[in-house]
Order: sequence, then C-alpha cells, then structure tokens
Amino acid sequence: METTTLTVNGMTCGHCVSAVKEEIGSLPGVQGVEVELVEGGDSPVTVTSDAPLGRPDLEAAVDEAGYTLV
Amino acid sequence: METTTLTVNGMTCGHCVSAVKEEIGSLPGVQGVEVELVEGGDSPVTVTSDAPLGRPDLEAAVDEAGYTLV
Repeated sequence: METTTLTVNGMTCGHCVSAVKEEIGSLPGVQGVEVELVEGGDSPVTVTSDAPLGRPDLEAAVDEAGYTLV
Repeated sequence: METTTLTVNGMTCGHCVSAVKEEIGSLPGVQGVEVELVEGGDSPVTVTSDAPLGRPDLEAAVDEAGYTLV
C-alpha cells in the first residue's frame, strides 16, 4: 500500500472536506483519504492507494472539487 | 407572494449556502431562497413563499442544514 501526503488549500468546512475526499477517492486504486482541515488555509491530506498516484491526477481531482493542490 | 428575511450564522462557503438553500427550499410553499454569504458570520437570507412561513419551521430547516438562525 502506498501513502501520499498532499497539501490542499482553500477548504473552509466539512462540506469542502467531503468534496475533496469524494474526488480523490474516485481516482483508480485509492483506498482511503484523510483530511486534517485547516479552515481557509493549507490542509494536510493523506491518501492511501494500491499503487503510486500521479501528481497530475491528484491535481485534477482537487481542482475538480474546487480547491488548489499546493 | 410573501418575502421573509432571515439571518443565518456560520456558513463559510458555497457548499454551506447550498445546504441551507436545499433545506429551506424544501419547506412547503417556498418558491425561492437567496443567500448573501458572509463567510463565518451573519448572512442575510431572503425567502419567497406562497404563504407566510413560521419561525419554528425556518429554524428547524436551518438547524437541519447545520447552521443557526439568528
């Protein structure tokens, strides 16, 4: 199992966290997404997956949710 | 048509606005819900409806969405 640690900027509430979890969680091979919300700031996000995840896919998922991958 | 102006506290983003609109919009007779988001503060909400709305129903809807009717 692979663990990837990201920083996502701009989430302000639990709804934002859910949106990010849903988008990242829909990437192939993702098993889990944990978010430590820093309201309006840089939030650490930990993703576990079967195989290594590509930065472009993660960036696209976070962008789709409406936030920025730092 | 009746217009009711409320103040809802605690919304921080567009997801919060959507949640409040959905809950208030599901009350019988409601035709429209407009929210002017004040992030983390007191946001004015304007509700148009066929008949006057009761405070308890509005309070329950806002509470269901996870926020506070001021």
